[in-house]
Amino acid sequence: MNTNHTTRLCRSFQTAPAAVAKADTAKYLRSGLTAEGFEAPDWLVPDLEDGTAPSMKDAALENTIELLDEHEFAGEIWPRVEWSYDDARLRERGGEQIQSLVAEATESIDGVVVPKVGGVDDFRRVLTVLDDVTESAGVSSEAVGLAIILETARARSAVGDIARIGADSVLEAIVFGPVDYTAELGGRDLGDGRPRWDNVLEALSIETSANGLLSIGGPFDQLYTTRAGVTAYRADEYASQVEREAHLGLDGSWSLHPKQTVQANHVHMPRPAELDRAIDRIERATAALEDGTGAVAIDGQMIDEATIKNFRNAVSMVRTIDERAPAQTAAQYDDESLERARAIDISSP
Amino acid sequence: MNTNHTTRLCRSFQTAPAAVAKADTAKYLRSGLTAEGFEAPDWLVPDLEDGTAPSMKDAALENTIELLDEHEFAGEIWPRVEWSYDDARLRERGGEQIQSLVAEATESIDGVVVPKVGGVDDFRRVLTVLDDVTESAGVSSEAVGLAIILETARARSAVGDIARIGADSVLEAIVFGPVDYTAELGGRDLGDGRPRWDNVLEALSIETSANGLLSIGGPFDQLYTTRAGVTAYRADEYASQVEREAHLGLDGSWSLHPKQTVQANHVHMPRPAELDRAIDRIERATAALEDGTGAVAIDGQMIDEATIKNFRNAVSMVRTIDERAPAQTAAQYDDESLERARAIDISSP
Amino acid sequence: MNTNHTTRLCRSFQTAPAAVAKADTAKYLRSGLTAEGFEAPDWLVPDLEDGTAPSMKDAALENTIELLDEHEFAGEIWPRVEWSYDDARLRERGGEQIQSLVAEATESIDGVVVPKVGGVDDFRRVLTVLDDVTESAGVSSEAVGLAIILETARARSAVGDIARIGADSVLEAIVFGPVDYTAELGGRDLGDGRPRWDNVLEALSIETSANGLLSIGGPFDQLYTTRAGVTAYRADEYASQVEREAHLGLDGSWSLHPKQTVQANHVHMPRPAELDRAIDRIERATAALEDGTGAVAIDGQMIDEATIKNFRNAVSMVRTIDERAPAQTAAQYDDESLERARAIDISSP
Repeated sequence: MNTNHTTRLCRSFQTAPAAVAKADTAKYLRSGLTAEGFEAPDWLVPDLEDGTAPSMKDAALENTIELLDEHEFAGEIWPRVEWSYDDARLRERGGEQIQSLVAEATESIDGVVVPKVGGVDDFRRVLTVLDDVTESAGVSSEAVGLAIILETARARSAVGDIARIGADSVLEAIVFGPVDYTAELGGRDLGDGRPRWDNVLEALSIETSANGLLSIGGPFDQLYTTRAGVTAYRADEYASQVEREAHLGLDGSWSLHPKQTVQANHVHMPRPAELDRAIDRIERATAALEDGTGAVAIDGQMIDEATIKNFRNAVSMVRTIDERAPAQTAAQYDDESLERARAIDISSP
Repeated sequence: MNTNHTTRLCRSFQTAPAAVAKADTAKYLRSGLTAEGFEAPDWLVPDLEDGTAPSMKDAALENTIELLDEHEFAGEIWPRVEWSYDDARLRERGGEQIQSLVAEATESIDGVVVPKVGGVDDFRRVLTVLDDVTESAGVSSEAVGLAIILETARARSAVGDIARIGADSVLEAIVFGPVDYTAELGGRDLGDGRPRWDNVLEALSIETSANGLLSIGGPFDQLYTTRAGVTAYRADEYASQVEREAHLGLDGSWSLHPKQTVQANHVHMPRPAELDRAIDRIERATAALEDGTGAVAIDGQMIDEATIKNFRNAVSMVRTIDERAPAQTAAQYDDESLERARAIDISSP
Repeated sequence: MNTNHTTRLCRSFQTAPAAVAKADTAKYLRSGLTAEGFEAPDWLVPDLEDGTAPSMKDAALENTIELLDEHEFAGEIWPRVEWSYDDARLRERGGEQIQSLVAEATESIDGVVVPKVGGVDDFRRVLTVLDDVTESAGVSSEAVGLAIILETARARSAVGDIARIGADSVLEAIVFGPVDYTAELGGRDLGDGRPRWDNVLEALSIETSANGLLSIGGPFDQLYTTRAGVTAYRADEYASQVEREAHLGLDGSWSLHPKQTVQANHVHMPRPAELDRAIDRIERATAALEDGTGAVAIDGQMIDEATIKNFRNAVSMVRTIDERAPAQTAAQYDDESLERARAIDISSP
């Protein structure tokens, strides 16, 4: 929920292996492209990288190009290609994958997701590849956006510089990749799981907000739990992670499953009570400011111009979702709240 | 409690709206200027910005100039003016407010507080305005100090550079502004309140300590709670915040109310037991060092030269307050402890 | 546990005062040099700085040179010399100590530990001293490694730059010094002890991983607790600190006592169940990848190429310890696990 990006929505960043060893190798990709309602991700990410086995990489690229051509998807499409700051072979394959996608699917994709980016030098290398590919394909250099996965120590160390340089480039989002990141740092699971790396999320929130970019949390890979013979989806645990991310100001969360997409889409939109409270506070505080009262106490809280900005954010977010996915806002809010959210003045005084 | 600033005290940074829509528009400002004992803030901040309604801005400036002339205040006076890195109109108004204050109240003010500073470029713009104003007013460029409020993602991202540049300028303090900061990052209150942003406090403690500046925490705006018909001041909750700030090494805390000022002044001075323990450890460890023992175990703790520095800090702080506000030290410590604090040798060996 | 440093081990960084006011002034140093099994530190640090009283500094240097010549130590030897970014006298003494050590003990020492380093300028000053000393002693500039203690606000503020510059120098490790650090920041103990500064540990893990350096946690100085007349070693508390450090990816922990060394050596090597789980997951996931399955769910966890890296780290760590201290791996793991750890393929696909 970045105020600089009310026009761009990425509550859910759902990766789908683009080819799996099943009768329908495009099973998961197809499922993502045809999802409806809250199951439809804001961004669908056909995965050509770690989620796809080495032997299936070619099929993955073919599936992506073919299915994107067949389906009309309401959200955005961002294939994840191969790359690594410390492996020239992977960078070469990533460059070829980008080239194929731009040549055969420019109209269908909004951008590409590049993993394992290193420091500033490697980030510039990614920008150069994108520039070269779009130039030789004869498309505008701005036709293909870039999202990078922050999952190396070098990228973490340089995230401020990368975001600043990225602000003047096609970079649109930074996504956290905790598994590779933990391996790079040598973090240990001593019985309580991987480190949560909340500080990385906070740094992402800061640097992307300072530079007009989107920030997306990392995947939650412990999807199910089995107890006494029954396997259950871990709904509470994933929702808690997404709530922590929303709390810190991240724009969206990574999803590995349609159920996770439903939850990410829900958490990253204001709850009904949150919207009503925001509208109420804006109205009462605006009235107080017009009376000549600078700061006003409402229910024991001191509210001034700064506080109201947070409430305006909530209303602005609801309006954006309302334009893109009116079925979701209709399901989430009652008619009266929605009408007030559409009508209230949220401009600065 | 910054060892580089034993001569400067800012345990409490109390803002007061400089004009409100009441019979006495200067009610809160007057109250701050005439507070006594522990209710007297170390810094009083007449607020011309968010705490004052748009229609009262002119009255706020007049009240400030008039009352500062009338009252002799024991602490320091730091008016907060308008400013914003992304709003030229606010920067212009801020510049005019600084000009008026310097022209008509240079003798009464110690500096100005500038909010919503952006990155390095915007910070340099603030320094230029101050330089221009003091030059055209014909006063020394060092006559007016600067405190900035860190409340934008850009300032957070650049705080290391700002503090380093600030070390060679009139910058004296960095203050946290969590409400605007949360709005900028898009942080959400999902039922547990705003994010606490403890990492920002820690970064402030680091960068100000590295550059000889003061660091001040952010306001606690949920002053009261109402239950079963009775409204009560939230003494525990505010004191806990101030204690967290002191724990991380911040020099002072923001106060919105005389009761908060009392608490900030108390927490940011060593407690009686803390002072006695410091004196005891310094004496015993110094004796051990003179015996040729490098590290000594006292009550199970290994104490060496590094440990003693922390205890010297506590004594040094008490001496500073004792000089500025002897009534406070007389109320806080018994005579014997105070005598020992004044007499003990706290120089490095 | 840094993947760039499988050949370098510093699970335990044990400081020993090099001279104390006892009949045998070298008592603690001798004890460290002759320790066996898990009591033998990976790095032994004869302390010429804060752990040694001013009057014993000369004896400390003599003891170090003499004992290193007498004893064959299986781990590495890194004397800690005097230094301070804000005290020219200490820097001069440190330079002389380094000179003596290089002149009389080059063969015995692996490097020197330099405390209270400031910002980038001061760090470069340390490098220059080392360069000058090795040049005038006629030894290779790479003969003496450097470890610095991060314990000033300036070093914390500049740790990214220091690590980057250090990557192309003789710098090999950054160690945390919480006591001096707390004094510099003015952090307060308000009844719950010093701040834990976990964020500093995380920053160390990031910056050292990004630059191929080792990272070591800070000392735990509350070694014992006394209750109802009985004094006990605080085994749980120290182990918890070491586990937090391992969790965040630090390579080793500071030890003040042989018991702490035993614990640090244990925690910083994979536990038996951790090793078995790693081997099992690598085998099952590798098989799945070969089947054309990119991501596989094992016990409810999604496992892909990135996840496997974490498991490879664990196996790699066991192999390194197995080469250096086979008695420790023989005591820690059963024969079958150890055989599988030696045999399994942990190269990237």
